[in-house]
Amino acid sequence: MEALIIHASGDLRIEEVPTPSTLPHQLKVRVRCGGICGSDLHYYQHGGFGAVRIQQPMILGHEVSGVVETVGSGVSGFEVGHRVAVSPSRPCALCRYCQQGLQNHCLDMRYYGSAMRMPHIQGAFRQELVVDATQAHRLADNVSDAEGALAEPLSVALHAVRRAGSLVGKSVLVTGCGPIGALLVIAARRAGATHITVTDVAAAPLRSAAKVGADETLDVAQDPQALARYEADKGFFDVLFEASGNERALVGAFAALRPRGVIVQVGLGGNMTLPVNTIVAKEFDLRGAFRFHEEFATAVALLNKGLVDVKPLISATLPYRDASRAFALAADRSQAMKVLLDFD
Amino acid sequence: MEALIIHASGDLRIEEVPTPSTLPHQLKVRVRCGGICGSDLHYYQHGGFGAVRIQQPMILGHEVSGVVETVGSGVSGFEVGHRVAVSPSRPCALCRYCQQGLQNHCLDMRYYGSAMRMPHIQGAFRQELVVDATQAHRLADNVSDAEGALAEPLSVALHAVRRAGSLVGKSVLVTGCGPIGALLVIAARRAGATHITVTDVAAAPLRSAAKVGADETLDVAQDPQALARYEADKGFFDVLFEASGNERALVGAFAALRPRGVIVQVGLGGNMTLPVNTIVAKEFDLRGAFRFHEEFATAVALLNKGLVDVKPLISATLPYRDASRAFALAADRSQAMKVLLDFD
Amino acid sequence: MEALIIHASGDLRIEEVPTPSTLPHQLKVRVRCGGICGSDLHYYQHGGFGAVRIQQPMILGHEVSGVVETVGSGVSGFEVGHRVAVSPSRPCALCRYCQQGLQNHCLDMRYYGSAMRMPHIQGAFRQELVVDATQAHRLADNVSDAEGALAEPLSVALHAVRRAGSLVGKSVLVTGCGPIGALLVIAARRAGATHITVTDVAAAPLRSAAKVGADETLDVAQDPQALARYEADKGFFDVLFEASGNERALVGAFAALRPRGVIVQVGLGGNMTLPVNTIVAKEFDLRGAFRFHEEFATAVALLNKGLVDVKPLISATLPYRDASRAFALAADRSQAMKVLLDFD
Amino acid sequence: MEALIIHASGDLRIEEVPTPSTLPHQLKVRVRCGGICGSDLHYYQHGGFGAVRIQQPMILGHEVSGVVETVGSGVSGFEVGHRVAVSPSRPCALCRYCQQGLQNHCLDMRYYGSAMRMPHIQGAFRQELVVDATQAHRLADNVSDAEGALAEPLSVALHAVRRAGSLVGKSVLVTGCGPIGALLVIAARRAGATHITVTDVAAAPLRSAAKVGADETLDVAQDPQALARYEADKGFFDVLFEASGNERALVGAFAALRPRGVIVQVGLGGNMTLPVNTIVAKEFDLRGAFRFHEEFATAVALLNKGLVDVKPLISATLPYRDASRAFALAADRSQAMKVLLDFD
Repeated sequence: MEALIIHASGDLRIEEVPTPSTLPHQLKVRVRCGGICGSDLHYYQHGGFGAVRIQQPMILGHEVSGVVETVGSGVSGFEVGHRVAVSPSRPCALCRYCQQGLQNHCLDMRYYGSAMRMPHIQGAFRQELVVDATQAHRLADNVSDAEGALAEPLSVALHAVRRAGSLVGKSVLVTGCGPIGALLVIAARRAGATHITVTDVAAAPLRSAAKVGADETLDVAQDPQALARYEADKGFFDVLFEASGNERALVGAFAALRPRGVIVQVGLGGNMTLPVNTIVAKEFDLRGAFRFHEEFATAVALLNKGLVDVKPLISATLPYRDASRAFALAADRSQAMKVLLDFD
Repeated sequence: MEALIIHASGDLRIEEVPTPSTLPHQLKVRVRCGGICGSDLHYYQHGGFGAVRIQQPMILGHEVSGVVETVGSGVSGFEVGHRVAVSPSRPCALCRYCQQGLQNHCLDMRYYGSAMRMPHIQGAFRQELVVDATQAHRLADNVSDAEGALAEPLSVALHAVRRAGSLVGKSVLVTGCGPIGALLVIAARRAGATHITVTDVAAAPLRSAAKVGADETLDVAQDPQALARYEADKGFFDVLFEASGNERALVGAFAALRPRGVIVQVGLGGNMTLPVNTIVAKEFDLRGAFRFHEEFATAVALLNKGLVDVKPLISATLPYRDASRAFALAADRSQAMKVLLDFD
Repeated sequence: MEALIIHASGDLRIEEVPTPSTLPHQLKVRVRCGGICGSDLHYYQHGGFGAVRIQQPMILGHEVSGVVETVGSGVSGFEVGHRVAVSPSRPCALCRYCQQGLQNHCLDMRYYGSAMRMPHIQGAFRQELVVDATQAHRLADNVSDAEGALAEPLSVALHAVRRAGSLVGKSVLVTGCGPIGALLVIAARRAGATHITVTDVAAAPLRSAAKVGADETLDVAQDPQALARYEADKGFFDVLFEASGNERALVGAFAALRPRGVIVQVGLGGNMTLPVNTIVAKEFDLRGAFRFHEEFATAVALLNKGLVDVKPLISATLPYRDASRAFALAADRSQAMKVLLDFD
Repeated sequence: MEALIIHASGDLRIEEVPTPSTLPHQLKVRVRCGGICGSDLHYYQHGGFGAVRIQQPMILGHEVSGVVETVGSGVSGFEVGHRVAVSPSRPCALCRYCQQGLQNHCLDMRYYGSAMRMPHIQGAFRQELVVDATQAHRLADNVSDAEGALAEPLSVALHAVRRAGSLVGKSVLVTGCGPIGALLVIAARRAGATHITVTDVAAAPLRSAAKVGADETLDVAQDPQALARYEADKGFFDVLFEASGNERALVGAFAALRPRGVIVQVGLGGNMTLPVNTIVAKEFDLRGAFRFHEEFATAVALLNKGLVDVKPLISATLPYRDASRAFALAADRSQAMKVLLDFD
């Protein structure tokens, strides 16, 4: 079968790789659809991010859906032909963090398509994938392959939302409206937020935010003071989801956030200089949110039941043989939100 | 103006009462619509419930919407003609519980239409009502007077949901599907529950539950073992909202509730005999939920934005002069979910 | 070696049993001291409790300390001669509850000396015990074998305290002052409680409560209205630890518990009839607390550092060959708090 | 009476001021002892901190104890001669934050000796102080005036500890060991922490930390890698109390803090540049802690019952007429922890 392998910045190749055999607790999945994530883009454009660098050839991709081709002898609940979304989260189950239910902090995590460790963990942008049955989640007939591939980034958003505590009746600010920011709007709404404002520095992402239900979208490039109206009485928003990884977005929201406000930092952005006195005096609660684990099942359940609609975020689906074009499109915020590869 | 006054069990009269003057921080509201609550029914049918008994004539009612007729000189944000839902929650603001943000436990609460204290607190089933501006919440044009009157019981449901903590991705069981049970389905769904099962002992309420989005409805009168399928591996449901006030409903759900499951007890039901060893061994968390306070604003916001739909629960609207007929209908579970009085 | 084996109610025998071999990840421990627990007493006096009955011979005991005799080849951190307390909690690590960090709800728990499942899990009242290295916790020189044997019930108390949330500055009521009640006083104080009242129906246990630092002890047999002074303004206590398993103790505390008060039910007591309307109206939060897992390490750390003192609770230490006498003493609340067996 | 008034940086004068009359709900207190806080020092040395500057003469001081001289006609529970600690926290009771139980975020707070607002709020370094009865907390005979004056900074530490959630069995790191850092050691221990490491850049404060019970003290000026031993397996400490306000202390602790670790930022320190990617990837929870409110009662209760011992932190008590010398001593970390003024 063929796979999409990154060798270095800008060096993305389609190469033949062997399909591993299917163990009794596993499924072989014919991959149909894969979403291009910001980290895939970073590997492609920059050879990595921060200290994480491509040091050996690595199959990209961790947002995929497909069809069951083979069912291991010890697996129940799946049949050949079932359509599934595949969770890329593969924790060890036995380390101290797994035993505390914190699988996303596993000491031996093997997350698809990640250069965080050596040897790198090979990814899921390939025609066939052998997965543990616990990674596979059946898609309902009403959910397309493309929507199924969005279960992964939706899981990231759901995990961030769970980190915020109950959102029922809360006023929420989302800064940065790439695919994760837009999915945060969807997830926060699903969780009961009554008011959602989204900021970005570009018009197209804000249009997407409006499409998925934001109450208000603000272009802070056009109007850097757009949040000032929310600063009275020490601030308005209960919760901030920071999805831009941009220091100015984070710091710029502080005055509009109420005392005891919760900030969930989702965007990665290296060093940021923060006014710590404000965090102290307003007693903010700044929480990191990283990946997910059990939220993958929630994401698929919400898609299957039609309780969330991610279709407005799907910009285009291209054949995997046009990967370079697809990656270029995915990198263009004025054109694309989520770009998918078709592996069929 | 006229008001609906209960004198004793079965003795409900329409009588003339004076309209109080409007103080500077107040609004005078022409009441348009009022919902009949279970407690109103108890006063009417039984003269009270538990130790709470009618000891002097009392105007009934605490679920009302109307139109602003007069705006106090110190009030901003309201104009004559604004349509509003009125919160019946009137805490003192200064007692130890108010100062802890627990207004529903206020030591000097004056909740409309309640015989809990002497003199009784007069209710809102009357043609004109003078309220503090903080009690009034504007209704959007798309929300009918009848829906506005449901803001109050929806607030009860939202408060119960908040007592449960985050429901995102949770499996929820609701036992008892009167108006509060049905509103719990709506509120739990809005809060992100992925699976909602409802039980009752009658068919009509279960049909309502299905209409407002329950995934499954079970008639435990027809099949007392209906929940047995959920008992494997120590139980399935994460959260139980007990809205029947019936011991059998509560205890009958224990085996289907997972360890560390949260039980929010909403239904009032006097003494219940519980297997405390099960509560201990499965480490349940049984929480009472009583009324609401800040959730009223959330309820109106959700109605105004179309984020919840309570219309399927409105069974009928009768003129207040037909109150006896309306109360009889409200008491008939095979016919009615929520019955409203028209005061216009 | 010899072990203490219960065959039926009242039929406790000392019998020879083989010592299992020590696997690479295990330790062989020469047992020195074992505490008699209420459940041991129930097996001895009544053949079990509730639905849990002795159906085959079972070695009793789960509160033991000893000395390392053999160190498995794969174990680090232990040497022959180390004194250790042994945790009886042996979860499977892989079931859904273990993977959520809820090991005390493990679907395949093998807790020492428990007839909850068939075949029964053999206990630790024996001269030699082979344990997983993860069960063993080193005792400091300043901690006696007897104190080390109390690490287990102290863990139960610590787990219950953690179920209550932060106790810093809280007013605590403990109802029932057997060994667990007294250890709850110690644990609640360690956790920052500023006021601790203890009730019981006998004088001797209350004297123990005073010795371990209770601010106040009330004999509710002598004065059933002793808690009435705490009923003003809807109640005084923030947290109730119910350790008697007695319905009257639980219900009798309701009026003295403030709204939103937390009740941690530790005592097992079968069916109890509770005024559920009070739970609802005061929004109590009734939480079961069952065994422990990670708290065992905390218990040993607190003992090792001298941060808790359990010595006042040790009533007597008898040779294991005098087990019948020891059990009789342990059952006499006027004489004994915690009775220990010496296996040396 | 006389008061200590700051006019500008370095310009501290003793001046005569009138004593206000005592209203019915108030007490007149003869001040006996006042602690010099870091903010007092900042006003004295630098004329303020950050954007907070002395703009008009202001009486300093907010950590005082004294004796009741006059009891307002409407006050019960106090008598002339009672010794009291005085809380400087005077919220408005009615703003949205007070009504949520967040009095430390009051929109109209009048905290003693604070230049945060204009006109400045006059402080408590004066011979007589008229206070609301709710501000006064009786001291037990075993608590000295000086210890009573430490109730205020102890409250700050207790509030920070409560922000961290339950500490039972937790491993705690305190960075920065001025008076607040040392009181955090005391408070964290009282709250059940089993391991407490303290870092500082000077020897004297670390000796104080050891005196109040830290398990380990590390001089990170001598050994900048002192925390490296705690970095295995993604980190060791559960909770970090950052009390230095120093960016290097905060960032330097990240590698030693476990995933999902809680950071309570207590120290004020202006802008800090933080590796946000680490906060995200380890899902830290960085919480500001600012002042206190209800914790003042807890502080006094702990002192009164002998459950904390703050005596090791009292470096010296000087007559208020020697204020300049006292402030100089308070500023010398090699000599002093907490310096008190005697107003008697």
